[in-house]
Amino acid sequence: MQEYIYNVKCVISYDGSDYFGFQAQEGYNTIEKELYRAINYITKEGNKIIGSGRTDRQVHAYGQVINFHTNLKMDESRFMYALNRMLPKDIRVLKLKYVPLDFHARFSAKKKEYHYYIKFKNYTPFDVRYFHYNDKLDIKKIQEAIVLFKGTHNFQGFCSAEVDKRKDFNKTIYKAEVKVHRDYYEFIFEGTGFLKYQIRRMMAYLIAIGEGKVDKNKIEEIFETKEVQMHYKMAPGCGLYLYNVSY
Amino acid sequence: MQEYIYNVKCVISYDGSDYFGFQAQEGYNTIEKELYRAINYITKEGNKIIGSGRTDRQVHAYGQVINFHTNLKMDESRFMYALNRMLPKDIRVLKLKYVPLDFHARFSAKKKEYHYYIKFKNYTPFDVRYFHYNDKLDIKKIQEAIVLFKGTHNFQGFCSAEVDKRKDFNKTIYKAEVKVHRDYYEFIFEGTGFLKYQIRRMMAYLIAIGEGKVDKNKIEEIFETKEVQMHYKMAPGCGLYLYNVSY
Repeated sequence: MQEYIYNVKCVISYDGSDYFGFQAQEGYNTIEKELYRAINYITKEGNKIIGSGRTDRQVHAYGQVINFHTNLKMDESRFMYALNRMLPKDIRVLKLKYVPLDFHARFSAKKKEYHYYIKFKNYTPFDVRYFHYNDKLDIKKIQEAIVLFKGTHNFQGFCSAEVDKRKDFNKTIYKAEVKVHRDYYEFIFEGTGFLKYQIRRMMAYLIAIGEGKVDKNKIEEIFETKEVQMHYKMAPGCGLYLYNVSY
Repeated sequence: MQEYIYNVKCVISYDGSDYFGFQAQEGYNTIEKELYRAINYITKEGNKIIGSGRTDRQVHAYGQVINFHTNLKMDESRFMYALNRMLPKDIRVLKLKYVPLDFHARFSAKKKEYHYYIKFKNYTPFDVRYFHYNDKLDIKKIQEAIVLFKGTHNFQGFCSAEVDKRKDFNKTIYKAEVKVHRDYYEFIFEGTGFLKYQIRRMMAYLIAIGEGKVDKNKIEEIFETKEVQMHYKMAPGCGLYLYNVSY
């Protein structure tokens, strides 16, 4: 592997609607592929991109973080401007900074914050890409249930069934709350890190609880059994935003 | 032509981003085609759809109006619900009403209102489809210029160069104003009707005036010469919304 002398950290925002998720995949349009194209158009170095984590198809980001090593030294604001000129308009670099070589967007991350948005009235065609819609939710039941996610738990029952079984499923959630706005609910989750599909599965249970189909005790039951119950679908990706990554 | 005994009026809202405009065109995905598919799935009558007018590719609507003749009599709210079940999520029927047989969405229209949105700060990837972006506008110059569009004028110089020269180019604009919001400008145009590309061409001049590239006298010059000056591009469709049609 080539030795680079600089490390660049970027905060990225994207509308994930038209992408097959963050991670580069042969034959699919992904966020990482667009970032790679823009960065390498400028550096010509074939720089590998490190993301703080993957986001699924149609999931958005306000504050995804990436880094890449390079030998190119440019004025930071000019570098950011150049990248934004090369990127499609639904992906934007919000911040760009040269950081110490040992900064790693994934391994250095301390906390991640995700938001999930559900519109419950005034739904318009302009909301389709950015909100999940549900007008049948009992928000009090959801508020009683969401706090059960706080603390350190084994989240195996709330993640993708395909995940490697040797993985560490113990994760700590510091913040799990829902705010009621004029015509939408904002769910906020902050934690050490999240497993594949974890938030969309947690959201699916919260929605089922809000619809009165499931009791909140179900959450503690799944912590104990650790079984992924596939008949509870994941909440749609369009409502989910990677909001912030803390280092 | 088949004789139908009922006439149905609908108010439609759509996110035009993923459509090649309103009007049905062979081989293209259009709003009219989706409406036709949904209506005829329910009526099975091959009903012809009459729109208040066309909207271009990527142009949106809050209040487009259509009508169609049918022999089907259904409860209005159930009919609307059924249509919305069949339509893609970026097209919504907001109102549905049985109206007298002589109502015609285009010929009966008295006034049309269009809005154009330009974001001037806090631009995000989530705005790309719905706003034009420009942070270099002198809004005072625009406010002085926009009033020149009010009244009855020959708008030949502000429409598509392809338009039939025998057409009546005299149109009356009742309202032409711009509101300044926290991070975007809202342009409002209300008139008897608008020619193809008229508002996007008017907007292109207003933007050029706001950027200091053109003087406001240019507007009166074009009213006189009636020449379409093709080097002034149209403002992008994504910022334009058919806001309301009055009958």
